[in-house]
Amino acid sequence: MTTPISPTFADVQDAAVRLRGHAVVTPLIENAALNERVGGRVLLKCETLQVSGSFKFRGAYNRISRFSDDEKARGVVAYSSGNHAQGVAAAAQRIGTRALIVMPHDCPQVKVDGVKAFGGEVRLYDRWTESREEIGAQIAAERGSVLVPPFDDFHVMAGQGTAGLEMAEQAKSLGVTFDAVSAPASGGGLVGGIALAFEALSPATEVYVAEPAAYNDHALSLTAHERVGHAPNPPPSFCDALMAPRPGDVTWPVNSRLLKGAVSATDAEVAEAMRFAFRWLKLVVEPGGACALACLLNGSIDAQGRVIGIVLSGGNVDPGLYAEVIAGRR
Amino acid sequence: MTTPISPTFADVQDAAVRLRGHAVVTPLIENAALNERVGGRVLLKCETLQVSGSFKFRGAYNRISRFSDDEKARGVVAYSSGNHAQGVAAAAQRIGTRALIVMPHDCPQVKVDGVKAFGGEVRLYDRWTESREEIGAQIAAERGSVLVPPFDDFHVMAGQGTAGLEMAEQAKSLGVTFDAVSAPASGGGLVGGIALAFEALSPATEVYVAEPAAYNDHALSLTAHERVGHAPNPPPSFCDALMAPRPGDVTWPVNSRLLKGAVSATDAEVAEAMRFAFRWLKLVVEPGGACALACLLNGSIDAQGRVIGIVLSGGNVDPGLYAEVIAGRR
Repeated sequence: MTTPISPTFADVQDAAVRLRGHAVVTPLIENAALNERVGGRVLLKCETLQVSGSFKFRGAYNRISRFSDDEKARGVVAYSSGNHAQGVAAAAQRIGTRALIVMPHDCPQVKVDGVKAFGGEVRLYDRWTESREEIGAQIAAERGSVLVPPFDDFHVMAGQGTAGLEMAEQAKSLGVTFDAVSAPASGGGLVGGIALAFEALSPATEVYVAEPAAYNDHALSLTAHERVGHAPNPPPSFCDALMAPRPGDVTWPVNSRLLKGAVSATDAEVAEAMRFAFRWLKLVVEPGGACALACLLNGSIDAQGRVIGIVLSGGNVDPGLYAEVIAGRR
Repeated sequence: MTTPISPTFADVQDAAVRLRGHAVVTPLIENAALNERVGGRVLLKCETLQVSGSFKFRGAYNRISRFSDDEKARGVVAYSSGNHAQGVAAAAQRIGTRALIVMPHDCPQVKVDGVKAFGGEVRLYDRWTESREEIGAQIAAERGSVLVPPFDDFHVMAGQGTAGLEMAEQAKSLGVTFDAVSAPASGGGLVGGIALAFEALSPATEVYVAEPAAYNDHALSLTAHERVGHAPNPPPSFCDALMAPRPGDVTWPVNSRLLKGAVSATDAEVAEAMRFAFRWLKLVVEPGGACALACLLNGSIDAQGRVIGIVLSGGNVDPGLYAEVIAGRR
């Protein structure tokens, strides 16, 4: 097997040019109650406010906007737990091509509805008995559509990195330097892309990957110095966006080199972070999107006297689950 | 009675200098789903992200930061349905004076808790049988505390205007001019302060006051060309922040001169706006804070082909009510 080609910071910069005027330059916000709670200065990158409600639009748009006319005519196929699905559908709609998305049957309804709202077609599969990669590849072969994977793709990863580029620039305009930043990871495209940006723009900043406690494949891989999966048959997590089995082929070479470490949070801690975001930040954050915030609030990320960047990566959560969380029933 | 002295744009600018580094320069965000829904370009001023979860911190800080040392020693007293309460408590805490707040017994628990979290003392009263003005004045007399009213105050109104100053500057940096802006009103300090900023910085922009349908005292007053109250014994509204009986002494001279018109929304339309904000904007907005958005979504504000600014003025809502709203039970 040849070494996969991973993007560099130049590719992130190139993606930023492509995304200009299409993706939202999401705000980096600060909240006094949060600063007080953790004893440091926290700046929150609100990718919940991105087109399609998560950072995934960045990578999808960066990839699909490079389609040839012939590829546009054949359309795009993607497999996703839901946020990449919506990002691809929204990007495809804007670029003028059609999208078919393979989604797990147990993913949040809001994500299925979101894909449809952006004009996408949905094919459900069973997360526990079927392989989304195989189904995606099969449909791509049948229809001639171009498969855009959720993280193991050069341009997708570079696109996600634009969130980090913005963070570094926004911090600079505030006159501060991040001591550490953290972003949630499934396959690791977002956190890896962010790490590329910080390596170039703010090399002293430590980058931490945030994972659900039972889906800690980045933590295990960083410790082992080789790519390994999380323990088999983990308990289900409500962080539906963060359940990839191991770091990606494209992401791991970057992440293994640039990540300072891994932090994790239990579902209960993630629910607490979602409640904190509701109560004090007034932001709707989905479970997976709140994972890095949960790692800050549970003390895994040391904020005392430091400047910390936290990515709130998505806000696509069903009202029923959200009501349970804010009522404290999760 | 002498004509009350209302602030001018110079006072708003002065407030902005005072608030620098203390209030959040809240983001002006854009959402593709919202633009598509109304057929125009909408920029949302997110005062939900302000210190204390509403714009009220601006006016409170502007007023209390001008206290003499003697006044600081005697403390501040305020009456408020909850957002001014928290704004005053948060400002008092930062400035180093104590706050006692007179709040209606039926106001949201989150607002009472917020005051206490900012170190304030709470005195509850009955909204339907007692006068908050009288109670506030009595406590001020007993304790020697300085009364800071929620809208009928020169510096409070000037402080609220800084939200409008920011909106005009942020729009300019985006290269756009608002055709119209709208903000919710109880006594009218926010919308009036905003109107002062737009008169100076963007005089072609129309400013509309947004009110709950049954608490439409600005609409009635603008039509009558004199200050009148809303109809007696209106049905209760869940827009707890917007229930003042009539425009204020300090606000009306400005509002009667500068407001282009009034728009209104029913509680059901406000609930729909809150659901839209949850589903598409990923922002937690309280009923009163969503009133201008509701007036946009119900068609009262014409957005077709225009650039519209909408103020989301607060996000302090109890989880129980919020769960009912997002479940569609309101």
